[in-house]
Amino acid sequence: MTAGTPAPWDALPIRDELRGQSPYGAPQLDVPVRLNTNENPYPLPEPIVRRIAERVTEAARDLNRYPDRDAVELRTELARYLTRTGGHTVTTEQVWAANGSNEVLQQLLQAFGGPGRTALGFDPSYSMHALLARGTGTGWISAPRGADFRIDLDGARAAIAAHRPDVVFVTSPNNPTGTAVAAETVLALYEAAQAAGPALVVVDEAYGEFSHRPSLLPLIEGRPLLVISRTMSKAFGAAGLRLGYLAADPAVVGAVQLVRLPYHLSAVTQATALAALEHTDTLLGYVGKLKSERDRLVSELRAAGCEVTESDANFVQFGRFEDSHKTWQALLEQGVLVRDNGVPGWLRVTAGTPAENDAFLAAVRAVRHRLGNGQPPGPDPDRTKESNR
Amino acid sequence: MTAGTPAPWDALPIRDELRGQSPYGAPQLDVPVRLNTNENPYPLPEPIVRRIAERVTEAARDLNRYPDRDAVELRTELARYLTRTGGHTVTTEQVWAANGSNEVLQQLLQAFGGPGRTALGFDPSYSMHALLARGTGTGWISAPRGADFRIDLDGARAAIAAHRPDVVFVTSPNNPTGTAVAAETVLALYEAAQAAGPALVVVDEAYGEFSHRPSLLPLIEGRPLLVISRTMSKAFGAAGLRLGYLAADPAVVGAVQLVRLPYHLSAVTQATALAALEHTDTLLGYVGKLKSERDRLVSELRAAGCEVTESDANFVQFGRFEDSHKTWQALLEQGVLVRDNGVPGWLRVTAGTPAENDAFLAAVRAVRHRLGNGQPPGPDPDRTKESNR
Repeated sequence: MTAGTPAPWDALPIRDELRGQSPYGAPQLDVPVRLNTNENPYPLPEPIVRRIAERVTEAARDLNRYPDRDAVELRTELARYLTRTGGHTVTTEQVWAANGSNEVLQQLLQAFGGPGRTALGFDPSYSMHALLARGTGTGWISAPRGADFRIDLDGARAAIAAHRPDVVFVTSPNNPTGTAVAAETVLALYEAAQAAGPALVVVDEAYGEFSHRPSLLPLIEGRPLLVISRTMSKAFGAAGLRLGYLAADPAVVGAVQLVRLPYHLSAVTQATALAALEHTDTLLGYVGKLKSERDRLVSELRAAGCEVTESDANFVQFGRFEDSHKTWQALLEQGVLVRDNGVPGWLRVTAGTPAENDAFLAAVRAVRHRLGNGQPPGPDPDRTKESNR
Repeated sequence: MTAGTPAPWDALPIRDELRGQSPYGAPQLDVPVRLNTNENPYPLPEPIVRRIAERVTEAARDLNRYPDRDAVELRTELARYLTRTGGHTVTTEQVWAANGSNEVLQQLLQAFGGPGRTALGFDPSYSMHALLARGTGTGWISAPRGADFRIDLDGARAAIAAHRPDVVFVTSPNNPTGTAVAAETVLALYEAAQAAGPALVVVDEAYGEFSHRPSLLPLIEGRPLLVISRTMSKAFGAAGLRLGYLAADPAVVGAVQLVRLPYHLSAVTQATALAALEHTDTLLGYVGKLKSERDRLVSELRAAGCEVTESDANFVQFGRFEDSHKTWQALLEQGVLVRDNGVPGWLRVTAGTPAENDAFLAAVRAVRHRLGNGQPPGPDPDRTKESNR
């Protein structure tokens, strides 16, 4: 929808806050090198594909029946995976799964946010958090990060005390900056949120497996309002599967069951996820490769004269560009699609295969040569804003 | 959760309207004859299972990529199916799909209902409509049906004029009563809703394929706020797939895209649905069998001395029992699980295979003999109620 052209749905009695909006989502363009949505570039190996077909065949023979409403087998295997890799023992009762971590987060907001309540996040961060708040009638408070994209603890504490949010989002590693959050920071935020609240603190670890740091999972111990959210989209190379999950106190799992749609998770989704979970070692092998490539992107982008934010994810934020959208366009003309997340001066590139990353780095060099180094823009004076959408 | 025992989540800062609630869902009991959730008793034939495995294998090879966010191929095939069976030409742009019709309806409420708005339904009906309203912060208005479970047009018009709802649900065939709604009634309700509104009128045709009447689909022509909602759970024998869809003006489809979660429909779900849609003739064959069995249940229940509500669905409402829960329990003791939907004096049985229906009918005869015919209860004096949940 071109800006300024009224959309056909604007003539309908939709909610006021939706009027003039467009659907969320990155442009889906047909370009040789697509490094814009943080997908894992490695297709599932054929033995996993075959195992998926086997398990789905089994599920399809019973497809006339509703799926396991509580996805017990799947949650058990996710708990086993977290226990093995997250540094903390997790039980089935502490795990919940849904269609992508977006649905997990939506359910948390339906139970703990909603009309008359607010959620707070530290921007720039995953922009779906604010959209999920809007979609659930939850007010959204955007608190700023420091100039280095870390959470400034004093500022964060002040924002929490001032706004007394019902839900606090902490994204670690953060999207789109790649910044990890230290365990001590999460603990301090949790304490601040409980002192002002109570509030649910949701640590979005969608990119957790790519971090240099261990998972924040052990922090759920003894903290009934701390939630770790995860996804199989990135580390498991299964963005097409749409399987997100959380770990938290069993009471939080009970609470989301009050708002989840009954039978929300299809039998084929459950079967496919279970097949992939049989092969976590293979899939985590690709994570190792991507971490090396991510580190290479950081050093080669710096060598090419770019400023780069330290990254714990499978993507890298790089800049700084006087006009980042113009640079985005110039890279696209070189056949490389990256993401303009709207952070002034910066772009985001997903770690792809070595060949894709080479093509991206060559395009960056060509574009910098053509556009010049640019002047980094000044800090954004208006990064703190509050809206009740 | 036993009534009266506080649930662990009640100690958490969840929304007040969720406090003391339990998750929605029929009891999942291990019983020889399960006729309680309106599932199709016929498993998918093996050629369809094989075709699902083929298409899922193909999808799994690309599972590291996000699925088609707009599910264009799937919506095109659903439009083709509706055009072929619904008496009206429907285009891809008029169709939207999600994880079960529950998610379709939730998205409609997020766009057209929500905080400060209301939805109205005619009870007894599908109880998820009220729960979806609660989950989206939409006020719920329960308008009564007549004593024969039909929508009384004068009463309905008065309720719409009094409450000026933003969304009106019309379930046809109605669940749990089986009652179809005439096209003229839907048209009159639509006019009343627009005169008081505007309002979105959602015709929930989850059981549409089982009706003696043609689909209400042609009514969307020229009515930009009329929506037909459908599912593959029942007629397609694919409850485990979780695939619901709607047909409406393209602007309504645009509006739900503002609130849908991005990539809400997994690649395996899309692949499985497409495989099933290649075999609609086979699957509609089972629908024919189930309609005959439904009609047999109606006549044999009457012969056994039961009162039966006319049914256009794959289930039958039967009664009347002084204590319907006691009868439900007595049938369970005979190894037959039916549904107690909370309609005083009545129970609901799903049309199963001929053998399952025979077992059910034998159990009814045994139970009636044991419990006696019972006195039908008087009308419920308190069937009109309004709540803002």
